[in-house]
Amino acid sequence: VTKLRDLGEFEVIRLLTAARGTAGAGVVIGPGDDAAVVRPRAGEDLAVTVDSFVEGRHYRADWIAPEVLGARLAEANLSDLAAMAARPRWGVLSYGLDAAHDVDALLAFQRGAVNALARHGALLVGGNLTAVAGPEWTSLTLIGGVRKRRAWTRAGARVGDLVAVTGHPGRAGAAVRLALRSGAKALGPAHRALADAWRAPRAHVELALALAAAGGVTAAVDLSDGIAGDLAHVCEASGVGAALELGAFPRDAALARAAKALGLAAESLRLGPSDDYELALAIDPKRRKSCEKIARSLGVPLTIVGRFTKAPAGLIARDASGRTRALRDIAAAGFDHFRPR
Amino acid sequence: VTKLRDLGEFEVIRLLTAARGTAGAGVVIGPGDDAAVVRPRAGEDLAVTVDSFVEGRHYRADWIAPEVLGARLAEANLSDLAAMAARPRWGVLSYGLDAAHDVDALLAFQRGAVNALARHGALLVGGNLTAVAGPEWTSLTLIGGVRKRRAWTRAGARVGDLVAVTGHPGRAGAAVRLALRSGAKALGPAHRALADAWRAPRAHVELALALAAAGGVTAAVDLSDGIAGDLAHVCEASGVGAALELGAFPRDAALARAAKALGLAAESLRLGPSDDYELALAIDPKRRKSCEKIARSLGVPLTIVGRFTKAPAGLIARDASGRTRALRDIAAAGFDHFRPR
Repeated sequence: VTKLRDLGEFEVIRLLTAARGTAGAGVVIGPGDDAAVVRPRAGEDLAVTVDSFVEGRHYRADWIAPEVLGARLAEANLSDLAAMAARPRWGVLSYGLDAAHDVDALLAFQRGAVNALARHGALLVGGNLTAVAGPEWTSLTLIGGVRKRRAWTRAGARVGDLVAVTGHPGRAGAAVRLALRSGAKALGPAHRALADAWRAPRAHVELALALAAAGGVTAAVDLSDGIAGDLAHVCEASGVGAALELGAFPRDAALARAAKALGLAAESLRLGPSDDYELALAIDPKRRKSCEKIARSLGVPLTIVGRFTKAPAGLIARDASGRTRALRDIAAAGFDHFRPR
Repeated sequence: VTKLRDLGEFEVIRLLTAARGTAGAGVVIGPGDDAAVVRPRAGEDLAVTVDSFVEGRHYRADWIAPEVLGARLAEANLSDLAAMAARPRWGVLSYGLDAAHDVDALLAFQRGAVNALARHGALLVGGNLTAVAGPEWTSLTLIGGVRKRRAWTRAGARVGDLVAVTGHPGRAGAAVRLALRSGAKALGPAHRALADAWRAPRAHVELALALAAAGGVTAAVDLSDGIAGDLAHVCEASGVGAALELGAFPRDAALARAAKALGLAAESLRLGPSDDYELALAIDPKRRKSCEKIARSLGVPLTIVGRFTKAPAGLIARDASGRTRALRDIAAAGFDHFRPR
C-alpha cells in the first residue's frame, strides 16, 4: 500500500488531477492554476450547494468502499441540485485526509465521484488537499445551471397541489439504524435493498430536468431530513399545511422487515430522517398525469401521497382506518449533528 | 459560554444565516433552500477556488482570534481569485466543528469571513455544518467573475517580461516559524509586522482588477508556495526561466530581525513558502510604468525583482556581488501537508 506521505502533497495532487482529466463542456481553465475558470451558458442562473462527509459521522470505512463513498457524496450534492431543477455542471472537492491514507483508495474515491458527476454531465474542475490528524472528511461544492427565474424552491406549493415523493423513502435510514445496532453485517444480503439505498443512491437529476421542462411542479425539496422534516420546510416556506394518506405509499416489504427487526413502525422509518436522496414535489393537480408519465418513462417511482392544505391544519397523516395524527408524532427521531444519537 | 450542542444543528444554522444577511448583488435565492441560486453577468467567465484551514495544521487557536481567522480564510481564497483577475462574487462555507464549539466564536468567525468578502463585493450564499470529534476545519469555496477569455493564468509569461511581486513576501512564513519555535508570544509586539502579515493578510483584489483593466500583465500566481515554488510553476507553465536580482527586493528590517532570531538568511525566508497571499506577476516591460502607477495609486508595494528568461537558464537569483544561485537552493524548505515538518 502506498500512503499519501510516501508520495507527498504535490505528487498526490498531480495523480488526482491526471486521473480525472481536465477538459470538458464549459471548462475554460482546468486544474493546475490558482482557480478553475468555467463558462456559464447565456441566460442561465447558477445553483450552488455544498455537502460534506465525515468519517465516523456520516459513514464508517467498513460500511462502504472508497469508490462507492465518492459516488455517494456526489449523489448527495446532485440531489440538492435536482431539488432546484438545476443541471449539474462543475464541482470542486476539498479533502482532509490522514497522511497514512492509501493513495489507491483516494484515487478510487475520486473515480467514484467523477463517474457519478459524469453521468449527469458534470465535471470536477478543482480541489484542495490537506492533512488531518483525526477523522477524515471530504467536502464537495457543486454548481449547476438553471433557467433564469425557473429554479424550483420550497416556497411555491399552493393549497390543493399534490404531494408527491420519488422512490422508497426510509430505506437508507433503516439501513443505518440496522448497521448501528448490528454492525456492518446488517448491510449484507439480509437487507440488500436497504443497504443499496444507503450505499448507492441515485439523485433524480434527469427526472427533475424533464419535469421542469414540462412544467407542473410548484415546489421541491430533497428529502435528506426525511418526509416529516422536509415537508415541514416546504409548508413553512409556502405558507400551507399538508395531509398525507399513509396507505398511498408504495408497499415496501424490505422496509417492513427492517421495522420489525428494529422494533419500530414502518411509517416511522418512512417519514423520518433517511439519506435516501429522494425528492418531495408539489404538483399542480392539472399536471398530475403528465408528471406521472414522465416519471414512468424514466423508470422512477413517483407516488402521490397527499395534498397541500390550508396552513392551520398543519402537517397530518391519515391511516387506513381514517385516524389522523401529526406527522412529527409518527416520524422516527432525527440525527442532530451536535447532539449524541 | 453557549456551545453548539446546547442549541443543536438547526438553531445554529438559523443563527448563522440570520447573522450574515441573505440579499445582495446577483443573489436570486439566498440561504434556506436546497441550494443557493446566483446570477452571473452576461459575458463573464467564472473562476472557482476552494481552500481549507485545519486546526493544528494551518493555525492554533491561541495564535488567532476567531473573527481574524475567518477573515484570513476569506483572504486566502480571495487571493486565488486575484491571481486570476477575477472579481469576487459568492462564497459557500463548509464547517466541521466540535459539539463543544462556542456559538459566539462561530458567529465571530463567520463575521470575519463575511466582512472580508464584503470589502470586495462578495457574499456568503450558503454553507454546510457538521460535527467532528477531532481537529476542527473550515473549507471555503469562492466564485468570481472574470471577463471572457481574460483570466490571468500561469502560462502567459514571455521571455523578457518583468517579474514583479507585491508586498513583502516571507513575513507570514517567518511569523509561523517564530511561533512554532517560541510559542504564541512570538506573534506579539516584538514581531508585530510579521505577525500582522500572517494574521491579517489582504488579498490584492483591487490591484488585480485595476491592472487587468489597464493591461500589461501576462501571467500571475498567488505566492502561497513562496516565490521559488510559485515562480517555478509560472516558468513551467509558460516555458520560460527567470532571473531575479536579490538586491531589488525592498529592504525589510522586520524580516531581517526574524532571520537573525531563526538563524536563517533573510533571502531564504523571502523566497521560501509563506502564506502572505502576495502576487507574483509577469509584466510586459512596455507597460511597466503604467502598472507601477496603478499600484502606487492603490498604496500596494509592487517591486520589479527580475526578468523572465529563456527556459534553459532555469530559475536563478543574483546577489549584490553578481554571484548567481538556483532559487531552490536559497529558499527555505516548504511544508508538505503529508510529511512531518
